[in-house]
Amino acid sequence: MNMAKLFDTVTIIGVGLLGASLGLALKQKALAGTVRGVGRRRPSLDKALEIGAIDEAYLEVAEAATGADLIVICTPAAAVPQVLDAVRPVCGKSAVVTDVASTKAVLCAHAKQSWAEPYRFVGSHPMAGSEKFGPEHAKAELYSGSVCFVEQFNGHAEEAHTAVMDLWEKVGARVVQVEPEMHDAMVAKTSHVPHIVASALSQLIENGGAEGAPFIGSGFIDTTRVAEGRPEIWRDICLTNPEAIETNLSEVIRLLREAADAVTRLDGPQLEKFFRKGRDARLRALER
Amino acid sequence: MNMAKLFDTVTIIGVGLLGASLGLALKQKALAGTVRGVGRRRPSLDKALEIGAIDEAYLEVAEAATGADLIVICTPAAAVPQVLDAVRPVCGKSAVVTDVASTKAVLCAHAKQSWAEPYRFVGSHPMAGSEKFGPEHAKAELYSGSVCFVEQFNGHAEEAHTAVMDLWEKVGARVVQVEPEMHDAMVAKTSHVPHIVASALSQLIENGGAEGAPFIGSGFIDTTRVAEGRPEIWRDICLTNPEAIETNLSEVIRLLREAADAVTRLDGPQLEKFFRKGRDARLRALER
Repeated sequence: MNMAKLFDTVTIIGVGLLGASLGLALKQKALAGTVRGVGRRRPSLDKALEIGAIDEAYLEVAEAATGADLIVICTPAAAVPQVLDAVRPVCGKSAVVTDVASTKAVLCAHAKQSWAEPYRFVGSHPMAGSEKFGPEHAKAELYSGSVCFVEQFNGHAEEAHTAVMDLWEKVGARVVQVEPEMHDAMVAKTSHVPHIVASALSQLIENGGAEGAPFIGSGFIDTTRVAEGRPEIWRDICLTNPEAIETNLSEVIRLLREAADAVTRLDGPQLEKFFRKGRDARLRALER
Repeated sequence: MNMAKLFDTVTIIGVGLLGASLGLALKQKALAGTVRGVGRRRPSLDKALEIGAIDEAYLEVAEAATGADLIVICTPAAAVPQVLDAVRPVCGKSAVVTDVASTKAVLCAHAKQSWAEPYRFVGSHPMAGSEKFGPEHAKAELYSGSVCFVEQFNGHAEEAHTAVMDLWEKVGARVVQVEPEMHDAMVAKTSHVPHIVASALSQLIENGGAEGAPFIGSGFIDTTRVAEGRPEIWRDICLTNPEAIETNLSEVIRLLREAADAVTRLDGPQLEKFFRKGRDARLRALER
């Protein structure tokens, strides 16, 4: 597809799966002139250069952000505020800044508080990761057909807000504008708490090996798949969305305690009701 | 494939996904002369007849079991003991009896206690179901490549034990012999508790619809898939494996409480450790 160039110079801070895939998409669709990549470790930067996700490699955020038209922060969530603080003093008056973290309220509030209005950071959350990570799994089509949440207009520079929505649409995502607190409350239910629960379920299996292997079926495999995600990413998600996670985790614990009590009482009708509620809720959630 | 006939007359009690699929496999591989199906509802029996899973339809267990060489009980788990009691007085001295329930200790103990040795019930658990159900989803290949647990030899008539292992191998399963209590302890961890947890997670989503839809990603879909299973089946599993389910459900609740406390304290190192333990345990469980 032939598209107009959106940005002369793009700086991607963090060249993992999301950052490197974005670089690949920008290059392959000719949406950017030069793509700069920032990393803390040389091997990741070399890999990103090798696959063509970035044109230039940097170890310093400030150096890489200077003169860039678009800066995309692709670090774990808890690092975003400090990276923003490093970017703000060096980025130009027309620069646009966004991120890809799975939590939005804390990060967007930090940007708003630390930046004079109209401010140029517009938070994003592309729902396009997986339990895989690192530039070696990057692909230009990662965002194609995915949903990307973009922070609702709220004192931003209007052209920055438009540019961020353009960016995600041009790499194939469907943009959904959302208020950060509402976003965090919803993803706590659909992603963050399910992840914590999948991790706890995995921990039930103390020993793998030949003895346990026949008991591992598709149910266990699917239910726990996300538990293979990177611990640092999920630690940061918890640290930046604690209230919604606590609320929903407490509700899950309450429901499980209720189910455990029904098992103890051998209460058939109550157990059937429990499973029926779960089935009906899932069918509704998937609009079936 | 051309195979020798294993049984002249087979009676399948319960013509749902597992029962009808077994009937189809027995017919298509010419492993059985006549397959009788027993159901409580006429439409299921008609469907099973229509797809060729059974040759004859019955509403009465005793009538269908009389004169059969193999009787396979494919009802929900909690109904197995009473079906066994209905089968025992009418089945011939050379008849072989098995089941397909996901719990084994309670059912195998009932058979052993109610039957003079050498007894002819050999418990089975083919790990081949899914959240789909009913004869309309039956397929002859359902068991192909799956694991089927068969109760360890324990006072059975030897030829009955051999016949049940033959049955599952001939329809394509890999037989794993197991002691019933050990079986139930393991599947509580890998299947029963994950199912209860998936149901609780689904219940977090009160409302589906357009507003919630963009937040449903592949993580939620996989983590909760099994929650669409039949409530009656899972109620019965809980009623027939209460101790192992309670123990492991309590452990999951303890782990989730620990995680929730770490979120409250914003304890990054503890959260990272939690997710790392989950990831490592899953990698080990899958022998990667």
